[in-house]
Amino acid sequence: MKPVYYENGELKLIDQTKLPTTFIIHSYTDYREIATAITDMIVRGAPAIGVTAGYGVYFGALEYKDEPKDIFYDKMKEVCALLASTRPTAVNLFWAIKRMEAVIEANKDKDPTRLVEILKDEANAICSEDIQMCRDMGKHGAELIHYGDTILTHCNAGALATADYGTALGVIRAAHEAGKNISVYADETRPFLQGARLTAYELQADGIPVTLITDNMAGWMMKQGKIDGVVVGADRIASNGDVANKIGTYSVAVLAKAHGIPMYVAAPTSTIDFAMKSGDEIVIEERDCREISHIGGIQIAPDGVAMENPAFDVTPHQNITAIITEKGVVYPPYDINIPKLKDEI
Amino acid sequence: MKPVYYENGELKLIDQTKLPTTFIIHSYTDYREIATAITDMIVRGAPAIGVTAGYGVYFGALEYKDEPKDIFYDKMKEVCALLASTRPTAVNLFWAIKRMEAVIEANKDKDPTRLVEILKDEANAICSEDIQMCRDMGKHGAELIHYGDTILTHCNAGALATADYGTALGVIRAAHEAGKNISVYADETRPFLQGARLTAYELQADGIPVTLITDNMAGWMMKQGKIDGVVVGADRIASNGDVANKIGTYSVAVLAKAHGIPMYVAAPTSTIDFAMKSGDEIVIEERDCREISHIGGIQIAPDGVAMENPAFDVTPHQNITAIITEKGVVYPPYDINIPKLKDEI
Repeated sequence: MKPVYYENGELKLIDQTKLPTTFIIHSYTDYREIATAITDMIVRGAPAIGVTAGYGVYFGALEYKDEPKDIFYDKMKEVCALLASTRPTAVNLFWAIKRMEAVIEANKDKDPTRLVEILKDEANAICSEDIQMCRDMGKHGAELIHYGDTILTHCNAGALATADYGTALGVIRAAHEAGKNISVYADETRPFLQGARLTAYELQADGIPVTLITDNMAGWMMKQGKIDGVVVGADRIASNGDVANKIGTYSVAVLAKAHGIPMYVAAPTSTIDFAMKSGDEIVIEERDCREISHIGGIQIAPDGVAMENPAFDVTPHQNITAIITEKGVVYPPYDINIPKLKDEI
Repeated sequence: MKPVYYENGELKLIDQTKLPTTFIIHSYTDYREIATAITDMIVRGAPAIGVTAGYGVYFGALEYKDEPKDIFYDKMKEVCALLASTRPTAVNLFWAIKRMEAVIEANKDKDPTRLVEILKDEANAICSEDIQMCRDMGKHGAELIHYGDTILTHCNAGALATADYGTALGVIRAAHEAGKNISVYADETRPFLQGARLTAYELQADGIPVTLITDNMAGWMMKQGKIDGVVVGADRIASNGDVANKIGTYSVAVLAKAHGIPMYVAAPTSTIDFAMKSGDEIVIEERDCREISHIGGIQIAPDGVAMENPAFDVTPHQNITAIITEKGVVYPPYDINIPKLKDEI
């Protein structure tokens, strides 16, 4: 299940706002529309929006490649700035854009018509590397899962959140493929319902046993001994191990700790913001409150009621048992072990 | 805002499945339809379904009053059994039915046509006593709320869950009326959305500042220091202080404890099951999973996915700071202080 891929000169995105009842793939060649697709969460998930932004930079270059060089570089700044303005929390977006910018910078001697081909290769590399990183994360993470475990996951850190295979669900897939006889509880993950619409959908499609619950049931399932471990993704990890992830992750982490259940975060090193000392600095995106007051166009709250809609929260490193990356599993003390990772990538 | 009341020979129920966008009052005279209204959650909230069941018994008696005495008593057993089968968790339902049965038993010498009038008086008494209990709970509970506090509540333990005024929201109302300048965070309370549809609606109608959040945001709000106390209702309280309440209450209680925030339960003594030693014995209602997979007719989960839908959870007494009743505030040790209450009622 590939939510983002390049084919026949077009960027293809599965419309994740329409799942699970409707499966549509949109085609893009305009970087402005790609930016809007990120903002509107047609594509979502930190690694997947990184991959998408990479292609966005390429399509910007394609549009301006016949301009004089100085205008081309000015336009590319605009392209990158627009793509970077789509969503604030996931660092993979900025990581991918910076990587594309570095390619532009390193190839200033070349003609834009040549550069654009190099940018396409780089966007394709980001995409294919993402899949490989998910596979590697899966391999490392599966070792933490015991035979017969029931794993709770929150939001969708699956194939649909990456180029393929998934981060948290990559770990779950790998454990399943290794014959560990696991099963999964999926939090529905209000307000955007990524758990109900996406995680339940992709696990069901893969034949991995999944039970959907509302977010507020997770604690009760833990209390009854039904959950052996938690695996989630991440949108940004500070160098001290604080993790920004989908709203509700913090509650799950506190509940897991209170019940003595391990709390694992699976994310590629592109999700680590090595320059950020702690999660206190992470900008939390506030989204339109209509995501809360309406579901599928149905109004569920009174007109004019005040709402808050933080799309993410930050789980302090003290609540995280281990962080699963493509380079291996990182344990506390994170402020020592995360910076070490930087030398490996 | 009275969700259940008797008027001109009919039982009136606000249809709480249609709020907040549609305000409809249904009229009932058939006890079978009253039972269905409880099952379908046209009326919900432990005290309110107790009041409704009281009237249900009366309408059963009215229907059978002209039967021979022995048939009348047999029919009344059927009436009470049907009403008792509607929902399993809230004890107020059984409490109210038993109270009506005790009236039948105590008046066996009287003709059913006379008894039916006594039963109407008893149902009216249950209703009016409930309002008074809520007022008294509000008075006692408001003393626990500090000036400027922000209170989190879960589900709807409001006027709409009682005959009027509310239990948890009665405490909030009383604090507001006492000029304590409080504000409220309301969990939306999936799957049935009582917080979004009912609590936000009735607090907004009363001009009490309320901010609606999804259930999974509560922990993050606590982490940020935005919540000073939690007040919730209850569906059944065991004699050791374990509290069954709407699913998600347990998670809120664990989160509150982890953040050093007081966790208050407001409930009339009719919610206490003095015969039950601990919450382990409480039967948790499992409801139709369509409440999770569909919202307002809109499908949000894939076809055929497994789901669990426990309507309630049990919060152990260790997580509860105090229980607010109409007789006063009860503190730990609950296994000593709750049985003492029995002598006062």
